Amino acid sequence: MPNLRQNIITGEWVVIAPERAKRPEDFVQEETSRSDTEKNCPFCVPNGAAYKTRIEEIEDVYVVPNQFPAFVPEDAIYEQGGALYPAYKSLGYHEVVILKDHKINLSDLSKSIWDELLFIYQKRLKHHFTNPAVEYSLIIHNHGENAGASIVHPHSQILATSVMPTYVEKELLGSKTYFEKNKRCVFCDLISAEIENKERLVFENEDFVAFCAYAARFPFETWVLPKKHQSDFTMISKSERFNLGEILGRIFKALDQKIHDPDYNFYIHTAPPREGSPDQYYHWHLEISPRLAKLGGFELGGGDFIGVVSPEKAAFFLKSEPN
Amino acid sequence: MPNLRQNIITGEWVVIAPERAKRPEDFVQEETSRSDTEKNCPFCVPNGAAYKTRIEEIEDVYVVPNQFPAFVPEDAIYEQGGALYPAYKSLGYHEVVILKDHKINLSDLSKSIWDELLFIYQKRLKHHFTNPAVEYSLIIHNHGENAGASIVHPHSQILATSVMPTYVEKELLGSKTYFEKNKRCVFCDLISAEIENKERLVFENEDFVAFCAYAARFPFETWVLPKKHQSDFTMISKSERFNLGEILGRIFKALDQKIHDPDYNFYIHTAPPREGSPDQYYHWHLEISPRLAKLGGFELGGGDFIGVVSPEKAAFFLKSEPN
Repeated sequence: MPNLRQNIITGEWVVIAPERAKRPEDFVQEETSRSDTEKNCPFCVPNGAAYKTRIEEIEDVYVVPNQFPAFVPEDAIYEQGGALYPAYKSLGYHEVVILKDHKINLSDLSKSIWDELLFIYQKRLKHHFTNPAVEYSLIIHNHGENAGASIVHPHSQILATSVMPTYVEKELLGSKTYFEKNKRCVFCDLISAEIENKERLVFENEDFVAFCAYAARFPFETWVLPKKHQSDFTMISKSERFNLGEILGRIFKALDQKIHDPDYNFYIHTAPPREGSPDQYYHWHLEISPRLAKLGGFELGGGDFIGVVSPEKAAFFLKSEPN
Repeated sequence: MPNLRQNIITGEWVVIAPERAKRPEDFVQEETSRSDTEKNCPFCVPNGAAYKTRIEEIEDVYVVPNQFPAFVPEDAIYEQGGALYPAYKSLGYHEVVILKDHKINLSDLSKSIWDELLFIYQKRLKHHFTNPAVEYSLIIHNHGENAGASIVHPHSQILATSVMPTYVEKELLGSKTYFEKNKRCVFCDLISAEIENKERLVFENEDFVAFCAYAARFPFETWVLPKKHQSDFTMISKSERFNLGEILGRIFKALDQKIHDPDYNFYIHTAPPREGSPDQYYHWHLEISPRLAKLGGFELGGGDFIGVVSPEKAAFFLKSEPN
């Protein structure tokens, strides 16, 4: 029987349809090699003429402005389109965080490169959040063509925007409502429940827990959260960063070994620098969304999702011993 | 300069980034043939054993229950997952509307087949809307693998659900708010403005208008609306059905000729059978969403869209004379 599951934070409904669903094994990808070569890669030195300006650079990672930014720093007023057609300049920053090694996969990243990558994320976010024009700064990573990556070379993007992303706003509102009613953080409650009931638990370490989302929008959708209450990703310490890298490394290795390098997105949802203490009720987290099912008219025209694999089976599959 | 455009109905923000955008010509697809054959097609007689039960059948179209439904008619209570994990049975109906001709493309549909298809949509919707358990019934059509179609044979789906689709709810709320403020239907105002300023207008006939959406989520996203105020798709007359088929035929032919059979979704948004007169403020419409750009982490993790082609250029391209 298909069932409707509700995300307690956002209020979204997701249909999980086991009859419609494939078994986790059915999502195993054909072994393919990513086709782009270093020679034609715009991110590879010395060809990277378009990306000469380096905002940050450390041993294995550098940051550049996006060559085709969706958000720009200029603050002139854009001509508006009238009452029916509101329009503004798309203000903010659009940066690309590039791993220097063209061929590296997140499933093979060393502990020290994870540390550098997460450190750079923190540093850029801290920088954006000091800018009063920036409402939010979203860190995303697209891996593979089906996940929207137009360049094969591994890179993340940071989009600092003058409007709050709709999805993050929904999470802020839902977690605030839950807090007002229950005097507890909804994410903290979820973490306790997931660790206790174990069926969706994937991995954990001293500081972090990873589980498949109960109302998953995507097959194998996995959330990673700090175990202790922490609203702001930029506040993680060096040792927490180490443990975050450790658990992410295990998840990407499991995805790679079990599903054979699937396309995926990940993104970090953290409290925005706004008044009204999201510190109390919000809990930062990282969501990984493998892109193994295509979105159709139900998702785009209805705005809700039909899940084609059970999150409990997905978790079991991800944490099982390698074949 | 990228600009932020707001959908006046839903309040959604979309970044339209001309520098990031490709020219409309860049979206022209490689000429490919859809690979499936009638021999292996589950919808083709006499192989369609799985689809023997015909809910409706007329000359060129038939309707069957989906073999793997996301919504089911049984009304037993589903075991709930506790306060953090709301779950219900996914109640409703999931039907497939099949064109008998395996090889036909919507760009080649005759006027009489359009009439049959739209008539069947109306009939099934009317039927679902008499059922008090049905909150909404969403008609969708997925064409091509990137649009979520797992079967090549042309077919639509009707999902009658016990929860209101999130996106339709947003439109209802936005159009109600606009009506309360302005005492006019927001869609009627948009139609007048689009016909007057022409830059996003694609086609029109006596009863219908088609234009590229100002805050388009998808490249070449096109909306089709009845010119006169009409909230309920099931109320269209035979002559309106004829003109709806006429304008849809022209749009799909333009997409086919200009972009070479792109993958797309379309869906019908109509007023639900609920109290409180959405009749006054809601205006039914059909949205066509070509699937020429992949959704990435910004869309999935932020919930907003970055448009990669200007809607004005898209409209100009679609209505230009065939090459």
